[in-house]
Amino acid sequence: MAETATLNHELVLNRWPDMSTEERLECFAALPREIADDVWLDLDSHAQLELIQGMPVGERRIWLRLLAPDDAADLVQLAPEPERNELLDELDETTRRETIGLLAYKEDAAGGLMSPRFARVRPEMTMDEAIAYLRRQAPEVETIYYAYALDDSQHLLGVVSFRDLFKADRTKRVSDVMRTDFIHATADMDQETVARLVATHRLLAVPVLDKERRLEGIVTVDDIVAVVEEEASEDIQKLGGMEALDAPYMQISFWNMVKKRAGWLAILFVGEMLTATAMGYFEEEIAKAVVLALFVPLIISSGGNSGSQATTLVIRAMAMGEVRLRDWWRIVRRELSIGFVLGAVLAGIGATRILLWQAVWKRYGDHFIVVALTVACSLVGVVTFGTLAGSMLPFVLRKCGLDPASASAPFVATLVDVTGLVIYFTVASVIMRGVLL
Amino acid sequence: MAETATLNHELVLNRWPDMSTEERLECFAALPREIADDVWLDLDSHAQLELIQGMPVGERRIWLRLLAPDDAADLVQLAPEPERNELLDELDETTRRETIGLLAYKEDAAGGLMSPRFARVRPEMTMDEAIAYLRRQAPEVETIYYAYALDDSQHLLGVVSFRDLFKADRTKRVSDVMRTDFIHATADMDQETVARLVATHRLLAVPVLDKERRLEGIVTVDDIVAVVEEEASEDIQKLGGMEALDAPYMQISFWNMVKKRAGWLAILFVGEMLTATAMGYFEEEIAKAVVLALFVPLIISSGGNSGSQATTLVIRAMAMGEVRLRDWWRIVRRELSIGFVLGAVLAGIGATRILLWQAVWKRYGDHFIVVALTVACSLVGVVTFGTLAGSMLPFVLRKCGLDPASASAPFVATLVDVTGLVIYFTVASVIMRGVLL
Repeated sequence: MAETATLNHELVLNRWPDMSTEERLECFAALPREIADDVWLDLDSHAQLELIQGMPVGERRIWLRLLAPDDAADLVQLAPEPERNELLDELDETTRRETIGLLAYKEDAAGGLMSPRFARVRPEMTMDEAIAYLRRQAPEVETIYYAYALDDSQHLLGVVSFRDLFKADRTKRVSDVMRTDFIHATADMDQETVARLVATHRLLAVPVLDKERRLEGIVTVDDIVAVVEEEASEDIQKLGGMEALDAPYMQISFWNMVKKRAGWLAILFVGEMLTATAMGYFEEEIAKAVVLALFVPLIISSGGNSGSQATTLVIRAMAMGEVRLRDWWRIVRRELSIGFVLGAVLAGIGATRILLWQAVWKRYGDHFIVVALTVACSLVGVVTFGTLAGSMLPFVLRKCGLDPASASAPFVATLVDVTGLVIYFTVASVIMRGVLL
Repeated sequence: MAETATLNHELVLNRWPDMSTEERLECFAALPREIADDVWLDLDSHAQLELIQGMPVGERRIWLRLLAPDDAADLVQLAPEPERNELLDELDETTRRETIGLLAYKEDAAGGLMSPRFARVRPEMTMDEAIAYLRRQAPEVETIYYAYALDDSQHLLGVVSFRDLFKADRTKRVSDVMRTDFIHATADMDQETVARLVATHRLLAVPVLDKERRLEGIVTVDDIVAVVEEEASEDIQKLGGMEALDAPYMQISFWNMVKKRAGWLAILFVGEMLTATAMGYFEEEIAKAVVLALFVPLIISSGGNSGSQATTLVIRAMAMGEVRLRDWWRIVRRELSIGFVLGAVLAGIGATRILLWQAVWKRYGDHFIVVALTVACSLVGVVTFGTLAGSMLPFVLRKCGLDPASASAPFVATLVDVTGLVIYFTVASVIMRGVLL
């Protein structure tokens, strides 16, 4: 955890996004050592790797050795497989061992985030002993603001904040002030879950325990801020209908970007082809009443938009822990009525528009009432269905063990487009039978 | 900042979302005082207000007085206007004064997040004096992990982390170890900007200065985690094509929810009406070649989907500070070529589908080559345009002083639907002239 930060290196960091790789290397090499240190530690792992790969091999060691093991693990994980061992070799013995230990965990699990450098105390220590002991550990540990009371086999007995030590009567012992009912994570816990724990309980760090309740490491709040941002970026990008980028926009290569986007776009396109099939079934009706075709985009997009709203709301509420799998029935009832009301609002606007255009331009011929009625009824049906489908899709995906955020706005829109067409033409064939069809 | 947390109250918090207001009040009243304290402090301001409004007036004081001034200000801000003074009256004199001071700031500015209870030291103090002084302040301040060195008129001279004090030689003075080139915020700074400062520099707290560089308060990292989540929720909801909810999904009333969603839905609907107008212009073409109508949803939705991807990417990159206003030209060039490639991919799939259907079912008559060519060329045009429009819209909105996140997927889709139709029918009338039209 970086404890303070300078203004000078802020200027360098601000210019970073505007520089090419060559400019970055040049700029970094030209910085005075003290500022370079700060810049280095504030860059994200992608940017650190870019510098490391560009600098002379002999210089790598200095910079890699500034990294804490969890940050070193992040950087090594991003490097292509063949380079990884070379990078690990540059680390000092202890850090290398710790880093390799962390590399065993998935990047997005608590184990991949944790630092093995926590501050420890013994339960029988007095306040003054504990504080003096922490003072000795201060240079090596990730944070001194929580201390962990362990027994001889590394089992975590209690957690004490530095502030608790500090406030307590000097005659007390660690075991008197430590909390034994502490929140903890496990190494394989998903980083999103860890982030929710830290956020809800406003912790500065959370201990990571193994199955025997031995302390493996700690995850600190500064990493959690990064996790929250990263998870939000992933969800936002998935909601936009593509794969998560996993790197800043400007740092993704052209073809990689195409790959991340073309996949979903092609899947959605193939799904959307069903609209051509669906419309094919109603080709005869369209030929008889071309006026029907005019409202196709309006009606299906309304279903898509309302579905996009519903799916976005439910996905975010799920991610924030506000809505769970078992809440699905409450959501169904709620969204069904909301969808109906929203559909009625749009139906009102749509019908008014048709009647108005008719009054002014006689745009829709003799049967304008039938047209208005068809459009209005279809809108109620399509919007209600879109809202319901959009709100349920994240539940279905989660139930199937998939990421609910894949229920992107475009995905829901595609789903609703096909169904919307069927609803529209079915309503039309009922209402218009004998009149226009 | 809560320093530790218990497991027992975790169980209560877990059940919270499933309970009605009555059940929550009942459950809260039944908790042993110690657990109730923890639950109370971990609930968000919405949930705290719900409890306060439901409990007997005489009991409110105990709970309100547990809140730090920044949390009290958040709660009071959520209460309806007439209740605010009553709530403020329950606070003790000092907290009330501090809370009223904070209420002067906008909720989403640094001033609305900051706590006036920071730890102070004097620059001439020795390490031991400073540590002893912090020990005395520990019960009252928001965090002891940063101490602020002030002169007699409250000007901030330097910042020292507790760890720096702790590691330093005991004979040194605060002025020797404090950092004078510290990062700071101003009270009117947007909370998103403050969050980026804290996240980039991995700070535990950031000082908030007034124009004369006097220290007004500090914003701590636990509040920043909440800000990052809140801002992501807002962006996600706007991207989904609605107003930001500003409260958890389950806590929004039915009609409020309808209001937040109907507005944008109606605006999009009115915009989408232009598709009916656009198609009206091509009514004659559709009547001549109904086959044209079949591909309308497929083509316009492809434009919408690619636009949705582009706008989502750019909005998130802007929010994360990776892309700025002046980068627009680089984005134009990049997205233009990406859009072209994506369009070509879809054109390939689309043409293949038509040729395949033709080979098997003779679905598209004698002129299937012309149909395939029209669809393919339109797809390239529509997807390229959609990508470009989607990526540029956030820049246009920001340039106009609006929130780029309003360039939601549905908004872009609506924009692209209308243009997509014009592109499609124009391409068709060029390619099909003399054949089908």
